[in-house]
Amino acid sequence: MSNITKKVSWSSRPDESGAAGEGTPLLNGSEQPRHSRQLSEEGSLFQIGRLSTVDLEEERTSDEDSLRGRPKEIPHNEKLLSLKYESLDYDNIENQLFLEEERRMSHMGFRCLEISRWVVCGLIGFLTGLIACFIDIAVEQLAGIKYQVVKENIEKFTEVGGLSISLILWAVLNSAIVMLGAIIVAFFEPIAAGSGIPQIKCYLNGVKIPRVVRLKTLVVKVCGVICSVVGGLAVGKEGPMIHSGAVVAAGVSQGRSTSLKRDFKIFEYFRRDTEKRDFVSAGAAAGVSAAFGAPVGGVLFSLEEGASFWNQMLTWRIFFASMISTFTLNFFLSIYHKNPGDLSNPGLINFGRFETDSVTYNLYEIPLFIAMGAIGGLLGALFNVLNYWLTIFRIRYVHRPCLQVMEAMLVAAVTATVSFTMIYFSNDCQPLGPEHTEEYPLQRRTCNFVNSITVIKQNSSLSFLCFKGTYNPLTLGLFTLTYFFLACWTYGLSVSAGVFIPSLLIGAAWGRLCGILLIWADPGKYALIGAAAQLGGIVRMTLSLTVIMVEATGNVTYGLPIMLVLMTAKIVGDYFQEGLYDIHIKLQSVPFLHWEAPATSHWLTARSVMSSPVTCLNRLEKVGTIVDILSNTSTNHNGFPVVELPAKLCGLILRSQLIVLLKHKVFVELARSRLTHRKLQLKDFRDAYPRFPPIQSIHVSQDERECMMDLREFMNPTPYTVPQDTSLPRVFKLFRALGLRHLVVVDDENRVIGLVTRKDLARYHLGKHGLEELQLAQT
Amino acid sequence: MSNITKKVSWSSRPDESGAAGEGTPLLNGSEQPRHSRQLSEEGSLFQIGRLSTVDLEEERTSDEDSLRGRPKEIPHNEKLLSLKYESLDYDNIENQLFLEEERRMSHMGFRCLEISRWVVCGLIGFLTGLIACFIDIAVEQLAGIKYQVVKENIEKFTEVGGLSISLILWAVLNSAIVMLGAIIVAFFEPIAAGSGIPQIKCYLNGVKIPRVVRLKTLVVKVCGVICSVVGGLAVGKEGPMIHSGAVVAAGVSQGRSTSLKRDFKIFEYFRRDTEKRDFVSAGAAAGVSAAFGAPVGGVLFSLEEGASFWNQMLTWRIFFASMISTFTLNFFLSIYHKNPGDLSNPGLINFGRFETDSVTYNLYEIPLFIAMGAIGGLLGALFNVLNYWLTIFRIRYVHRPCLQVMEAMLVAAVTATVSFTMIYFSNDCQPLGPEHTEEYPLQRRTCNFVNSITVIKQNSSLSFLCFKGTYNPLTLGLFTLTYFFLACWTYGLSVSAGVFIPSLLIGAAWGRLCGILLIWADPGKYALIGAAAQLGGIVRMTLSLTVIMVEATGNVTYGLPIMLVLMTAKIVGDYFQEGLYDIHIKLQSVPFLHWEAPATSHWLTARSVMSSPVTCLNRLEKVGTIVDILSNTSTNHNGFPVVELPAKLCGLILRSQLIVLLKHKVFVELARSRLTHRKLQLKDFRDAYPRFPPIQSIHVSQDERECMMDLREFMNPTPYTVPQDTSLPRVFKLFRALGLRHLVVVDDENRVIGLVTRKDLARYHLGKHGLEELQLAQT
Repeated sequence: MSNITKKVSWSSRPDESGAAGEGTPLLNGSEQPRHSRQLSEEGSLFQIGRLSTVDLEEERTSDEDSLRGRPKEIPHNEKLLSLKYESLDYDNIENQLFLEEERRMSHMGFRCLEISRWVVCGLIGFLTGLIACFIDIAVEQLAGIKYQVVKENIEKFTEVGGLSISLILWAVLNSAIVMLGAIIVAFFEPIAAGSGIPQIKCYLNGVKIPRVVRLKTLVVKVCGVICSVVGGLAVGKEGPMIHSGAVVAAGVSQGRSTSLKRDFKIFEYFRRDTEKRDFVSAGAAAGVSAAFGAPVGGVLFSLEEGASFWNQMLTWRIFFASMISTFTLNFFLSIYHKNPGDLSNPGLINFGRFETDSVTYNLYEIPLFIAMGAIGGLLGALFNVLNYWLTIFRIRYVHRPCLQVMEAMLVAAVTATVSFTMIYFSNDCQPLGPEHTEEYPLQRRTCNFVNSITVIKQNSSLSFLCFKGTYNPLTLGLFTLTYFFLACWTYGLSVSAGVFIPSLLIGAAWGRLCGILLIWADPGKYALIGAAAQLGGIVRMTLSLTVIMVEATGNVTYGLPIMLVLMTAKIVGDYFQEGLYDIHIKLQSVPFLHWEAPATSHWLTARSVMSSPVTCLNRLEKVGTIVDILSNTSTNHNGFPVVELPAKLCGLILRSQLIVLLKHKVFVELARSRLTHRKLQLKDFRDAYPRFPPIQSIHVSQDERECMMDLREFMNPTPYTVPQDTSLPRVFKLFRALGLRHLVVVDDENRVIGLVTRKDLARYHLGKHGLEELQLAQT
Repeated sequence: MSNITKKVSWSSRPDESGAAGEGTPLLNGSEQPRHSRQLSEEGSLFQIGRLSTVDLEEERTSDEDSLRGRPKEIPHNEKLLSLKYESLDYDNIENQLFLEEERRMSHMGFRCLEISRWVVCGLIGFLTGLIACFIDIAVEQLAGIKYQVVKENIEKFTEVGGLSISLILWAVLNSAIVMLGAIIVAFFEPIAAGSGIPQIKCYLNGVKIPRVVRLKTLVVKVCGVICSVVGGLAVGKEGPMIHSGAVVAAGVSQGRSTSLKRDFKIFEYFRRDTEKRDFVSAGAAAGVSAAFGAPVGGVLFSLEEGASFWNQMLTWRIFFASMISTFTLNFFLSIYHKNPGDLSNPGLINFGRFETDSVTYNLYEIPLFIAMGAIGGLLGALFNVLNYWLTIFRIRYVHRPCLQVMEAMLVAAVTATVSFTMIYFSNDCQPLGPEHTEEYPLQRRTCNFVNSITVIKQNSSLSFLCFKGTYNPLTLGLFTLTYFFLACWTYGLSVSAGVFIPSLLIGAAWGRLCGILLIWADPGKYALIGAAAQLGGIVRMTLSLTVIMVEATGNVTYGLPIMLVLMTAKIVGDYFQEGLYDIHIKLQSVPFLHWEAPATSHWLTARSVMSSPVTCLNRLEKVGTIVDILSNTSTNHNGFPVVELPAKLCGLILRSQLIVLLKHKVFVELARSRLTHRKLQLKDFRDAYPRFPPIQSIHVSQDERECMMDLREFMNPTPYTVPQDTSLPRVFKLFRALGLRHLVVVDDENRVIGLVTRKDLARYHLGKHGLEELQLAQT
């Protein structure tokens, strides 16, 4: 064996790059970078060196994490890329086993597979719709109960004159409910915090975020969002639906639950990253569809935020899931609302309907809309900057779960106080329509406006904020201001909640204000435009958001102005700060791959970005060597090129595959020259997916260490390769379009000289001063 | 030089495959095919053999074609792939020149480029909107004039009792107008026939259809569609808008017109296939957007029909173009309709608006909708089968331009007669609303129904067919029947016209019939569903069509039923026959790449599908050799791997590049060892794009033949490669996702052993009996 074991400790890496240039080395287009990782000149490639997919094994990390309280680890520098994130592999491992299975399958077999894909998508849509329905009904019921309690007490205390007692009662009640939600999130499943959209974006991008699609996450998410909304926080229940849909998809498509230790022995073919990703896209779309009653918007969301390769059949399946999801939600809600069979309801959100006479707009209004888009972009950027600082603060000082719970309770109390005060001092009280009166008489008694917004159904408030009644400009201004800061403070708390509804409310408020100030105009129309502008300014979606807004309002007429507004908001906002989700992705140091390589990166080549030297394996490799390589915690490689002498690439094998091989003792004893194992099948790999055991849990005896392992049958014999002179944009395009995890760099004799992984590409990004290189760090 | 020139004549190929199995060899999954093209065992790769991009040079072919009357060449066997189609190259040629230019460009330079992309998209949208506006106004004005003439004469003749003279007058007038349209199409630009959607699909797929995006085509298309619609044919003006938008895009983005010999010296950076394709997508989307008032639908159409790699920025630009297009159309039409500034109009099509009380649907109606979807699928399949036979008939017997013109005139006369007869015998006459009365009093005098449909604005008829009035079921049935056959006969005529409106009309008629028969239901609703079902059954679009229908009706409520209906129609229709556009693509033997490789093709490898041996060039190659290779009309290769001894791949160069090099005499005279040429720049390649001169037009003297050409600077040094054992689906995925034209197959020492091109992949398709292989033929 010519293998030389040379361990390069991971911790040495930051020092190296530190020596090359402190902080973030700025590279400019004209000169070649002095690269700290030069290709080893020794000729021998059989070295154990560094390889950039050096991630801690998921299970172990995550278990330790949840013990230690995860968020502590988040680095508070967005100029870093964390090494803790593994990648997903969206490229099929076309090894002999796989090809044999595919070749055995008949035409009818493939058709059945296709049908089962549709069935799975239908199920995903159905379950997602059910969950949305459950959240909606639970929120309504619990809010009703809360309201009843508060109302009785306020009536009691108002008679004895103590309004402050009412306030305290209200604040305490809200805090208690929010506490419940915060505790389950902070202590049991921190990944369930927030809307989950950044996490799903990362997942679809190909980054494995630990525990993001687990059943436990779903349960915590659903309970958490109910608590947050009932607790009166400035949040919405729409964002979390997207995450919920994704979890449902990941669960259903695998035909088993690892958490519940149940395997239904169905859909086994789908137990790999490629297929799972497709279903998760469908789940996210179904979530959007249920949240906003926007099936087409859901499909576009999945595509805009996630997909890279657009596949027609996949898109249709995603569409199907979205459709079923809206349908299910509508159907069950129609039963709940005692109007069964009427399917014309929208999703969870409800903008209300325009009156027919106010639907048109005129040419002279277009500049006004664009100006509002610009305001939305500015306010959105402000929101994002504030939230960015707040998040940095939280990462530094509020990383212990109990602190997080306390912060959430504080926010709940403040929100309750502010809204109570606003009701008290508001002189904008007017009687509500009969439909509200019966349900919640408190509204009639005190005030209809801020009250209803912060206390119960945000939906209906959004509806009448947009389209009904006239409000005092002062109230609207005050509302915009307070709600803006409240929403900004709330996003990023350790509770499950989304930012869509608050954004829409803020925008609708200042939009309506604009409409009122313009006198001649219909304020409802401007409220809608303002809502779009504000939301666009914060999240920076354009195409999907336009469609979502159009579908949610049920009115196509405003498609064009909404588009214009969203585009303006995006352009203006992007000038100052990134979108909210991107900020949070960056703050987590996720190696996120954008759509294209930075424009000015043509002078970088595969050779200069790749990781080298690479740990390679022989086609017939000693078990001991493999165990040693896998056990090397300082490198923790995930993919190994397989070579034959002299160093020619002949395949690629993954850590997970080697683990399964070791576990099943697929060894060849050379001395006796017979196989000691049963024939391994694809099923064995699928059963282990996705939670492969760590190498430490596999015992290999000293005798077995001397055996050989034959990798030929299991390795991917045709990995994608690039020549070393390939430019970065070209490497990037190949990598991104095919959803790769490892891309082997070869010389002109097909010898392995390096490996490009996600982190090698995600490192380069376009900063204010040209191309910047992020540092990799073990966080 | 070790080159052995061994010419393999192309004509020998069909015989070879004929020997291996007559007709279409059926391959089944279990056994490896006896492949007629075995890898040459001689070891030397320097052979001039066959290479599958064997296309005739475009300019020459097309010029000859138009002289001979093109359609004669279309093979009447859909089991063939024509070799006459070249491919587009959506992969950037990253040679030294290109990289140098990119590296020279600053960050600001890239930003300017990005801005100019947006500007171009804005222009595309604007011009497309203008064209739509022009077509709309021209049709309305000309139809008005025609109507006036007919009306006066009918009044005159009816008094003397001769209604048959009126009929003759009408038929003759229509025929004359249609003749005009048919003549310009058949004699001047046959590619402008039909809707142009199949051609644009092919272009976006990567097939170069000669002359499809030229200015002349646009002019003929626009005039042709006006004539067809005014001539009263059963056609619509929507489909051609998509083609028009695409031509506008291809023209504007290049900053010059080759036909008009004007070069504005702008947008030179965009003069390559990659960029042009992106703009053509935007143009097609703008066309859809203008036609249906559906900007989102336009984007989805472009993506569903064309794109492979979904890029966020590109999508936004497409969206922008669509938006501007609708906006422009609305703005100018609002001025024309003397209501300036009112932008709430939809596109060219007009479904009218629902009354508010009829918008809901109920659960029990869903099965009815699905049943209607199935009917639509069946009728669509019938339509397609009939049209398929008709097209075969036309290819065989109606291929001379004058015959085509006569057929178009015949159809026009028959259409006029049928509609006249139906008016005469119809007992379903009722007074029209006041808005029609004033404009065209003939309608009031005779009958409102069939008359208005076949004579003038189909739009308004569609509107009231869907949503207004009640019609006699017998009339509706008769209308469905006659219009079905008329539309089927009309599609494929040598006139510019689309199939959208006729399909919608047929569907609306039988849908309304269903609604009337169901008594309790609102017929307008069923007319809409029927229209969707029929159109879906014919063209088989789902996602984009749903959005188009929703945007065109201005009503989101029916999104869900329309989706269900379209899906059902697609599933049912696909069982019997492909979509109309796919049929026509297949009949033209276009090597169209679908989204995925056939499911059962895993047992095919790159080695078995590739073309070999390959004509390779040396890095320093003799001019004489290059000229000989390029002049070889029996092979006519388009891409040549560049190798260094011993046979190692070091680049890829295209025919077009070699032509430019030869034209500029970029030779190295070895004897005097100096360069005889000025430094060639990217500009020289861009100026020649896309109409590179044929090799015959370049004179190379005997002395020059002895010179050498240094290809290193011009070749793409990092072409994508695959190992020879790569499975077909894997090759396909790489090829399709990156939009490649040539994919080099190498052995494990990086030696060229074959080349995979579009035709090698498009050959395999899934037929009724498993995997089938199409034959390649020179047509």
